[in-house]
Amino acid sequence: MIIVLKPEASDSQVKHIIDKVTALGLTPHVSQGSERTIIGVIGPEDTLRITPLEAFPGVEKVIPVLSPFRLVSREFKKENSLIDLGKGVSIGGEELVVMAGPCSIENIDRLFEIGKAVKKAGANVLRGGAFKPRTSPYSFQGLGKSGLEMLKKAGDELGMVTVSEVMDGRDVDMVASFVDILQIGCRNMQNFNLLKEVGATKKPVLLKRGMASSVKDMLMSAEYILSGGNFSVILCERGIRTFEDSTRNTLDISAIPVTKELSHLPIIVDPSHAAGKWGLVPDLSKAGVAAGCDGLIIEVHNRPEEAVSDGEQSLIPEKFSKLMSELKAVAASVGRKIK
Amino acid sequence: MIIVLKPEASDSQVKHIIDKVTALGLTPHVSQGSERTIIGVIGPEDTLRITPLEAFPGVEKVIPVLSPFRLVSREFKKENSLIDLGKGVSIGGEELVVMAGPCSIENIDRLFEIGKAVKKAGANVLRGGAFKPRTSPYSFQGLGKSGLEMLKKAGDELGMVTVSEVMDGRDVDMVASFVDILQIGCRNMQNFNLLKEVGATKKPVLLKRGMASSVKDMLMSAEYILSGGNFSVILCERGIRTFEDSTRNTLDISAIPVTKELSHLPIIVDPSHAAGKWGLVPDLSKAGVAAGCDGLIIEVHNRPEEAVSDGEQSLIPEKFSKLMSELKAVAASVGRKIK
Amino acid sequence: MIIVLKPEASDSQVKHIIDKVTALGLTPHVSQGSERTIIGVIGPEDTLRITPLEAFPGVEKVIPVLSPFRLVSREFKKENSLIDLGKGVSIGGEELVVMAGPCSIENIDRLFEIGKAVKKAGANVLRGGAFKPRTSPYSFQGLGKSGLEMLKKAGDELGMVTVSEVMDGRDVDMVASFVDILQIGCRNMQNFNLLKEVGATKKPVLLKRGMASSVKDMLMSAEYILSGGNFSVILCERGIRTFEDSTRNTLDISAIPVTKELSHLPIIVDPSHAAGKWGLVPDLSKAGVAAGCDGLIIEVHNRPEEAVSDGEQSLIPEKFSKLMSELKAVAASVGRKIK
Amino acid sequence: MIIVLKPEASDSQVKHIIDKVTALGLTPHVSQGSERTIIGVIGPEDTLRITPLEAFPGVEKVIPVLSPFRLVSREFKKENSLIDLGKGVSIGGEELVVMAGPCSIENIDRLFEIGKAVKKAGANVLRGGAFKPRTSPYSFQGLGKSGLEMLKKAGDELGMVTVSEVMDGRDVDMVASFVDILQIGCRNMQNFNLLKEVGATKKPVLLKRGMASSVKDMLMSAEYILSGGNFSVILCERGIRTFEDSTRNTLDISAIPVTKELSHLPIIVDPSHAAGKWGLVPDLSKAGVAAGCDGLIIEVHNRPEEAVSDGEQSLIPEKFSKLMSELKAVAASVGRKIK
Repeated sequence: MIIVLKPEASDSQVKHIIDKVTALGLTPHVSQGSERTIIGVIGPEDTLRITPLEAFPGVEKVIPVLSPFRLVSREFKKENSLIDLGKGVSIGGEELVVMAGPCSIENIDRLFEIGKAVKKAGANVLRGGAFKPRTSPYSFQGLGKSGLEMLKKAGDELGMVTVSEVMDGRDVDMVASFVDILQIGCRNMQNFNLLKEVGATKKPVLLKRGMASSVKDMLMSAEYILSGGNFSVILCERGIRTFEDSTRNTLDISAIPVTKELSHLPIIVDPSHAAGKWGLVPDLSKAGVAAGCDGLIIEVHNRPEEAVSDGEQSLIPEKFSKLMSELKAVAASVGRKIK
Repeated sequence: MIIVLKPEASDSQVKHIIDKVTALGLTPHVSQGSERTIIGVIGPEDTLRITPLEAFPGVEKVIPVLSPFRLVSREFKKENSLIDLGKGVSIGGEELVVMAGPCSIENIDRLFEIGKAVKKAGANVLRGGAFKPRTSPYSFQGLGKSGLEMLKKAGDELGMVTVSEVMDGRDVDMVASFVDILQIGCRNMQNFNLLKEVGATKKPVLLKRGMASSVKDMLMSAEYILSGGNFSVILCERGIRTFEDSTRNTLDISAIPVTKELSHLPIIVDPSHAAGKWGLVPDLSKAGVAAGCDGLIIEVHNRPEEAVSDGEQSLIPEKFSKLMSELKAVAASVGRKIK
Repeated sequence: MIIVLKPEASDSQVKHIIDKVTALGLTPHVSQGSERTIIGVIGPEDTLRITPLEAFPGVEKVIPVLSPFRLVSREFKKENSLIDLGKGVSIGGEELVVMAGPCSIENIDRLFEIGKAVKKAGANVLRGGAFKPRTSPYSFQGLGKSGLEMLKKAGDELGMVTVSEVMDGRDVDMVASFVDILQIGCRNMQNFNLLKEVGATKKPVLLKRGMASSVKDMLMSAEYILSGGNFSVILCERGIRTFEDSTRNTLDISAIPVTKELSHLPIIVDPSHAAGKWGLVPDLSKAGVAAGCDGLIIEVHNRPEEAVSDGEQSLIPEKFSKLMSELKAVAASVGRKIK
Repeated sequence: MIIVLKPEASDSQVKHIIDKVTALGLTPHVSQGSERTIIGVIGPEDTLRITPLEAFPGVEKVIPVLSPFRLVSREFKKENSLIDLGKGVSIGGEELVVMAGPCSIENIDRLFEIGKAVKKAGANVLRGGAFKPRTSPYSFQGLGKSGLEMLKKAGDELGMVTVSEVMDGRDVDMVASFVDILQIGCRNMQNFNLLKEVGATKKPVLLKRGMASSVKDMLMSAEYILSGGNFSVILCERGIRTFEDSTRNTLDISAIPVTKELSHLPIIVDPSHAAGKWGLVPDLSKAGVAAGCDGLIIEVHNRPEEAVSDGEQSLIPEKFSKLMSELKAVAASVGRKIK
């Protein structure tokens, strides 16, 4: 922690800060420069972080030196985390994981049709929403528990890992009883109670980045889950909100190498929500793989015109299948594999 | 709804779309231009909004004409909503409401001290957090229920309306039993289950704008609460996330007149969280009042150096008191009042 | 300057950096912490700023402590700058300066009509564009020199200070021969050659903030002008580009107090370009004044329907006149004056 | 163009608008809905675009249907443009073009060393700045003409195409006499005079996207150059400004497929400026190629510690060489080639 003082800071103000730092059991290093005095505090920053140093008289700004996250960091764990998703699938290793399926689960027949198609094309995780966060109260809100029953059935029969969103702390156990991966949606990335709750389960968690969240914010949210004892967290880059309006969100492709540098957790890309248009999904998927992601989550629908949500960004199975074969080549070119 | 077709859209694609629109009971108006065919659909857009028209072959883009919100809109209700907050205080009229108090409730003595000071300066609502959404799992998370008991006690004895954040659907009834206004924090603005839950109460709700949420998104979240039967919603502009880093967030002052034009709901300004620095709070408060807001929510602490959260952005009572007297002049200059 | 080393930085890497710092005539302070080594360099940062320390092996990040600007800073000059604009008008003092007029100069009669109206309402500077930066090559590009001749004539006869944009270094002398204030548009805020060129004149410069520029970037651009010997710079907040789309840009109202803290230069607000809609101009103008700005620049047109540019954001003279009388009250409430 | 009227628009206001549209030689289609009246105007939008319809009484908003750009659009030219860069190199076809070299030209020996190294690794264009847009007036501003002489010499002897930035209209002819490609930097993307000036030359132009510019803004700037008669424009995605601060800018990878859909012009990626850190350059380069870009521009320096600018984001030749061989595989995986 570096405490930069105002040019006009008085001696007694400097002393007041030094006393405070010392009282916390830390050692202040004072450097008197020609233009500014700065106080460096070497040691565990956590103690100081909770002290509002910027509220102290004479302080101009406080600059943290260390990252605020611990368990998710590369320093805590050097090697990549390999997370077992069940049914013989794991993420974080050489092989990429592809999650695919409809935005919303609509009925059992359609789910099976789409599930079969994506599995045949090489997807190993079946996605499908049963609880849908919709901006309008008048939009379809998902089938709820009955949707999850369908997803479980499809996953079991097709031999696919399943993933679905949980939006409410009260549903965590129930959702966990049906699916293999609990998804935290971007709008809940900082719903800290929900994070604690999935952190208390043993289920892998797919944590989607919030639209206004930095990579570091995402890692802090993951830290909530790990600090609860659940180390099986998969991060997901799905676009951030910017001024650019030709896509629904702006896929922050740099988040992949940045996250890889800071953390041992696997990260996947959601090109469907980032783009908001199916036509952009193939190129963004390839970009994600080339940039080093550990998997993809792609919306696929066999009748997009009839989809109750996100029809405009869903690939039809034929296009998904074509994309999968193209992705194999891209994955190979960067030393990765797709089954 | 305007459906713009691709230049190469075929006749059968056009017919397919027209059939769909007609089947929904709506009337399409086809206009053949030299460069594009467009199909205008006049009538209730809600029916069409849930149909993924962009997924139809031949469609280039779909442009909504009407706003997606109903109950919150000026068209639904022409005059400003006046919301009774209890204890003789209401918001949305000539008189501005000032909410003030510590970020977190820390102990009963401090809360009373701060409460007395802000009341004396003219604040009519006492704020204080008992459930704190913190980016780090290692930070102080609030006193919970015992904090709310303190807040109720202070509010009752000081004759002040109280406001505190509720973060979890399971806590809504409990929090509602202690406070006068339920606050939905910016990170929960799109926690739709929570919105439904506060929508089912009779308590006034303070809805803070999300950091990546547009004014329209905020109004859609308010629509959730109103559609649940609770029309007592107070909006709050507290800054959005942008590239500018000299403030914690960027206070979107234009959101005040924009919201006033679109909606009948009152809107207040939170300069403390927008700025992240107490030194900027006075000027931003004055700007908010001059721009036409219906109130302010300001963090005040008598010992900012010891605050367990947000000390750097809290005004001390003396500065708050000075600000209040300055605000009276600004309010008067725009035809408003502060008690 | 604080140099934070990677956890795995070797002793020889540390030595290499220390040698480099020492060779530059500076004194490094090495602090060995449990998790990181950091090297503090106290002294003039300029010398180090141009050395790419982040390219040195073992360096994790480099944190500047001092601001990179000098002449524009409050540290360089404590008191507010008062800039003489000629014709008895100055900016930066108690009295606010209001600049008003059409976006583009269209013809002499219209300019006089508008000029008379805004002067009568209390404006003391007449604005009008002769060189127009337009996003489309097919849009009206301005009358050029003949427009400036009209502006000079109007300014002289009406006794008003004049301001107009200069877009090209080759036009600086010519434009300066006609107008009292040279305007640098937001798209040219980082056209450094142009900045140097207006810095070489003696004319006051109105520097508009770029849409992707932070307050600090704006101050650095002002530094270009001051370092050229021209200290008469007026800053202008006119909105930054964000995801919010209900306004053309997002007026960063906090930029006013932030700039006032960092710099001695006056700053004005342009509500017309920020909002992009005339209906929002009055409230934003009041907010600007209440937040402490030194003036406003407002687009006014007597026949907005016929305006060749920006008609949708121009106030008609009646509305401008009403606004001016309202602004007098707001100005008075914060201890300022409007003539 | 769709004109949406306010709910309260009067008949005479509607008539006034219809008269205006008709007077412009266009045909209005009025659709009376239950909630709004809308007026569709089919035909060339350019005529209407310059009329400030939003300034008309009764108008709520105006929605353009067509894109404002013409010559750069896919509708104007279906097939990809192939641009001849001289020395046997062209861009826009199967083969990717890799531009590499130092940020700034520092001296002839270093330029040759770097040039040789990047050529050997497979780069076909040598980059090097002689005019440098620097945010600080106190930073190194480039060698100017003598730098260009060095670049020409290096390009000729090494048989490489050359590219360098031109910042000032007065330098266009001079710079064009030394280099093969004129670069317009991101800060000058909307320096419309400069765009016109390079549009009047026959030289290929590398147009970098502005930090606050949408893809459509970039295409409008390209339209300036094409409308001047110069169709040899190469677009460049180099990151936009967002709240994310772990990279200097946010590389908008989606801009590649979006641009490809809208325009026939080639587009390259600049990972060095987007990331601001050399460690991220390889992954971003691969992502760009996988997403379908036509080339890359990468900063390479053999002594980054001594670079006068951008040392922290420059690859050393060994790393660049390794990257090139990896890129060959990625290019092949998406049906492209690198020499």
